[in-house]
Amino acid sequence: MGVLRMGYIHIRVTDLEAAKKHYIGTMGFTPTLEIGRTVYLKGWDEWDHHSVVLEEGGVGVKKFGFKVESPDDIDVIENKARVFGVKTERMSRGDNPEVSDGVRMTLPSTHVVEVYYDQTYVGIEVGGVNPDAFPRHLAGVGAPRIDHALMVAEDVNVNERFFMDVMDFYQVERLVPDLDHTECSLASWLSVGNRGHDIAILGGPPGTDGKIHHFAFQLYGWSEVLRASDIMSMDEVHLDVGPTRHGITRGQTTYFFDPSGNRNEVFSDGYVAYRDRPTTLWTADRLPKGIFYHKRQLNEEYTTVFT
Amino acid sequence: MGVLRMGYIHIRVTDLEAAKKHYIGTMGFTPTLEIGRTVYLKGWDEWDHHSVVLEEGGVGVKKFGFKVESPDDIDVIENKARVFGVKTERMSRGDNPEVSDGVRMTLPSTHVVEVYYDQTYVGIEVGGVNPDAFPRHLAGVGAPRIDHALMVAEDVNVNERFFMDVMDFYQVERLVPDLDHTECSLASWLSVGNRGHDIAILGGPPGTDGKIHHFAFQLYGWSEVLRASDIMSMDEVHLDVGPTRHGITRGQTTYFFDPSGNRNEVFSDGYVAYRDRPTTLWTADRLPKGIFYHKRQLNEEYTTVFT
Amino acid sequence: MGVLRMGYIHIRVTDLEAAKKHYIGTMGFTPTLEIGRTVYLKGWDEWDHHSVVLEEGGVGVKKFGFKVESPDDIDVIENKARVFGVKTERMSRGDNPEVSDGVRMTLPSTHVVEVYYDQTYVGIEVGGVNPDAFPRHLAGVGAPRIDHALMVAEDVNVNERFFMDVMDFYQVERLVPDLDHTECSLASWLSVGNRGHDIAILGGPPGTDGKIHHFAFQLYGWSEVLRASDIMSMDEVHLDVGPTRHGITRGQTTYFFDPSGNRNEVFSDGYVAYRDRPTTLWTADRLPKGIFYHKRQLNEEYTTVFT
Amino acid sequence: MGVLRMGYIHIRVTDLEAAKKHYIGTMGFTPTLEIGRTVYLKGWDEWDHHSVVLEEGGVGVKKFGFKVESPDDIDVIENKARVFGVKTERMSRGDNPEVSDGVRMTLPSTHVVEVYYDQTYVGIEVGGVNPDAFPRHLAGVGAPRIDHALMVAEDVNVNERFFMDVMDFYQVERLVPDLDHTECSLASWLSVGNRGHDIAILGGPPGTDGKIHHFAFQLYGWSEVLRASDIMSMDEVHLDVGPTRHGITRGQTTYFFDPSGNRNEVFSDGYVAYRDRPTTLWTADRLPKGIFYHKRQLNEEYTTVFT
Repeated sequence: MGVLRMGYIHIRVTDLEAAKKHYIGTMGFTPTLEIGRTVYLKGWDEWDHHSVVLEEGGVGVKKFGFKVESPDDIDVIENKARVFGVKTERMSRGDNPEVSDGVRMTLPSTHVVEVYYDQTYVGIEVGGVNPDAFPRHLAGVGAPRIDHALMVAEDVNVNERFFMDVMDFYQVERLVPDLDHTECSLASWLSVGNRGHDIAILGGPPGTDGKIHHFAFQLYGWSEVLRASDIMSMDEVHLDVGPTRHGITRGQTTYFFDPSGNRNEVFSDGYVAYRDRPTTLWTADRLPKGIFYHKRQLNEEYTTVFT
Repeated sequence: MGVLRMGYIHIRVTDLEAAKKHYIGTMGFTPTLEIGRTVYLKGWDEWDHHSVVLEEGGVGVKKFGFKVESPDDIDVIENKARVFGVKTERMSRGDNPEVSDGVRMTLPSTHVVEVYYDQTYVGIEVGGVNPDAFPRHLAGVGAPRIDHALMVAEDVNVNERFFMDVMDFYQVERLVPDLDHTECSLASWLSVGNRGHDIAILGGPPGTDGKIHHFAFQLYGWSEVLRASDIMSMDEVHLDVGPTRHGITRGQTTYFFDPSGNRNEVFSDGYVAYRDRPTTLWTADRLPKGIFYHKRQLNEEYTTVFT
Repeated sequence: MGVLRMGYIHIRVTDLEAAKKHYIGTMGFTPTLEIGRTVYLKGWDEWDHHSVVLEEGGVGVKKFGFKVESPDDIDVIENKARVFGVKTERMSRGDNPEVSDGVRMTLPSTHVVEVYYDQTYVGIEVGGVNPDAFPRHLAGVGAPRIDHALMVAEDVNVNERFFMDVMDFYQVERLVPDLDHTECSLASWLSVGNRGHDIAILGGPPGTDGKIHHFAFQLYGWSEVLRASDIMSMDEVHLDVGPTRHGITRGQTTYFFDPSGNRNEVFSDGYVAYRDRPTTLWTADRLPKGIFYHKRQLNEEYTTVFT
Repeated sequence: MGVLRMGYIHIRVTDLEAAKKHYIGTMGFTPTLEIGRTVYLKGWDEWDHHSVVLEEGGVGVKKFGFKVESPDDIDVIENKARVFGVKTERMSRGDNPEVSDGVRMTLPSTHVVEVYYDQTYVGIEVGGVNPDAFPRHLAGVGAPRIDHALMVAEDVNVNERFFMDVMDFYQVERLVPDLDHTECSLASWLSVGNRGHDIAILGGPPGTDGKIHHFAFQLYGWSEVLRASDIMSMDEVHLDVGPTRHGITRGQTTYFFDPSGNRNEVFSDGYVAYRDRPTTLWTADRLPKGIFYHKRQLNEEYTTVFT
């Protein structure tokens, strides 16, 4: 019972054709629906109808979708959300194409979080009977699925509590000012299963509420991160940082931008987490090592560009 | 709420000193306690007191331990177990050193499954504040943690139902005779979180109840599987099969034996699973590809040696 | 001055269409010429016209081509060959399409070795100005180039001397009966540059003269060996052994068969060799470890199937 | 006949103890001799007495040593050097400990190049009979050998001609202003065997003659580059750039500094080169992609810090 994963992220792009070229041609996602100036996409190893939604007009995140196990979870979360004090509204099947009814919540940070229990089943590309290990012909990077997102919020602690109290996430890692102030999250990595993080929250200056720092595609292995980075160079994707390792989550990463300026990440590995894992603390002075484990230095673009 | 993971496996070894050389010197686990002819070990990325127990005298598995989130889970599982019809008994804190009280169940296959909610906290080797990505000095393979076990049972279906009905596992992959008999499991891969499997069950001929085929150590990446296999060659570990990929779970693997003849595995990657993932079916005729994706052929040792 | 590399291998295949499917569709080589029932192929990172020649009719190797730096090398090698006592004949430009004149020698083992100094230049697929790291769209395994061949000879020592005395190769590794008989080569790995081996010779029983054990495609890295093995499984290529590491050369490998039964290898890494590197010796009792470093066991197919 | 490789690089360090900690403890090289304030080191896969010489006092390169096959090569190179017009002098056995006699040349760029035909044989660490694939216990990064160096010269073309005319190197890649000026080398990558480069030359502003940009350690594979970068983070090595891929040579790389400020590189893969490989051209406008294939941007430290 409860939240399974971040099931979709709905983002805005300035140029739909350029975005399709990036997410389909370079990243290797498959379009499953196009309505007006909105395209719905899935990765080859995802069975639900879509996980990335591209809507033309602007830039940044419009909303996040989290999938729960059953309709009952909707009620539970709605009740907890009311107690917590965030704005909720019911959504109907079809409000999002191919997505069940559910509940829509607006966080104090203005991020919109939708919770649903069903999407039209499409199936993974290798099939469900005696499947191959991956599709014989993959486009570009061939990312199998989305992974997580890093949202920006002026008040990290309230968003963190929302995900923990309402959505039943647990905290895996936390950035604190120093060891005398461990109750204050400057950034927070939260998981609802065994991934190192499903959602993370980064504190931003005034005016950053409702933005994201990036959302990530999962890859399997350091060699795939290299190959993805190579493909991006060939496709002239604007690369931000990487390949490298994170100290936080230990994952392997390359950051880059879609043609509209939304930051993407390819993310691999990272440890297996559990609810009883003690939260790892990072102190602000070691943040550069926590973010970029090798160079141990943050670049300005990385720390200031949010969409 | 519910089962977190297989927290320990307690096995019998014929020669404790040889076993310690293997599990400590070659695999890189750390002893945390030695009582009489029993040694308790943990991996560097495990925080609880132990995950592998080596007891001198014989060979094979003595029991499995599954960790749950809270004491309440013990009651829930005990009740479900009674309804299911397996033999249960309460165990007390200290029945297993450094392990809480809980419930002990004996499956129809005679395997003993213990459920507990707490172990003495030891902590991961890199610490909990600004940690390094792995310990600077690792012994041998340096396996961070245990992963899963494959138990052998004459009746796969009843064990499968036990893990699903009592322990709340879900089925990720299933071996069936053919597509006309998909309700009959010849083997079953079950998960309780997002790993491709936490426990698997393999059908065996009469006399195999209570045995295991292997238990696995997790590694992070195909290159680590190579390095582990190299180290095993240097240490003259009896290697069974690998390195290769599984079709089932897509994981990367090498099988080998401890000095007593218990089969171990190093296992890497495999996909991320969720409760709503449709179960993948394998038909018996494609089992060789399912087990060893490259060679597509089973060797006799692999299919007949159980301990 | 002297031999640069094995420039081509000309093999016989029983079914040209099946062979093309394998070498083009699965291995990713590109056809550059087709004349009658013979096809000429090159890898994407090779600049000369062809490196693999497939001729319909039978199975096994027809001849090897070694490229030298200049026409003068032809004379030098021809003279040395006469002194050595192998049969030589001049070949003319066009005897092999797109290949210069040179000299053809027949070894005591009946293998035919051609030496030439020029092939029509085609160029590598990524071009010669500001090139990408690899082609953006690769077919199948996408092997960049051929690497080496292992010939079978009843008398290893005479072939070994031929390559060392006439072709100026040096010995990198040698299999000997035991340390009391290190002058007797049971098998020999020979290099003419910095690769661990360009040609190897394996002693065979009567009747094996003129055959090969395998020829190899180079890959860059252990992850590419995995991916190649995955692709082969998808394409139902008959896999012999691997992925694994060799003790001899330290290279990473998978062996497999083309549809006609010629054994291929994908080979990665291995150390960098130099003429002053002391020859590594392997004693016959450790040959299994030398060949398959992990399993340390030879399978019958591997040791008896030559074409 | 001719040059085998760059056999040693002799550098100056400001603090010998700190340098030893870096080259021995972090990089994993082994000291073979210490005389006064000079230490001689070798990698585990090198058979000659030393390849890195650390001399306390200052920073930068003191000289390079190139090993040739035979004493006759010394005469040949000395004669060619005189014709070329560089200053030469004979050196005696023992001028460099454990190194044969030879010839010392001073390039117009003031770099000192020594050529020798013999060093005291020490042997690789895994031995020469039935060896393991690598030492069972490696310190730190465990680099097996040195690879290449990048020298800085105000006049690239003259150094390039020296290596080609006197030392018989061939040009693998070349940086030119644009395609109308391909005869002018702004930087040059030169090989004497099958490595992508053994020496490279980078044009520098006035005052940079006699300096190096970096010298490199070879690693085998992208995963080793990751692990090396991880170890450097743990050991607080000042990292410059990486891990990433080069467009030029296609090699995988991380740049970092020793405690004295000499830049090191770990370098893996890169293609196999031959004398008949057409020289790859890079135009100045694409240099960022040529150097750092992913980010396609040069950092200031990388382009201005020479020692």
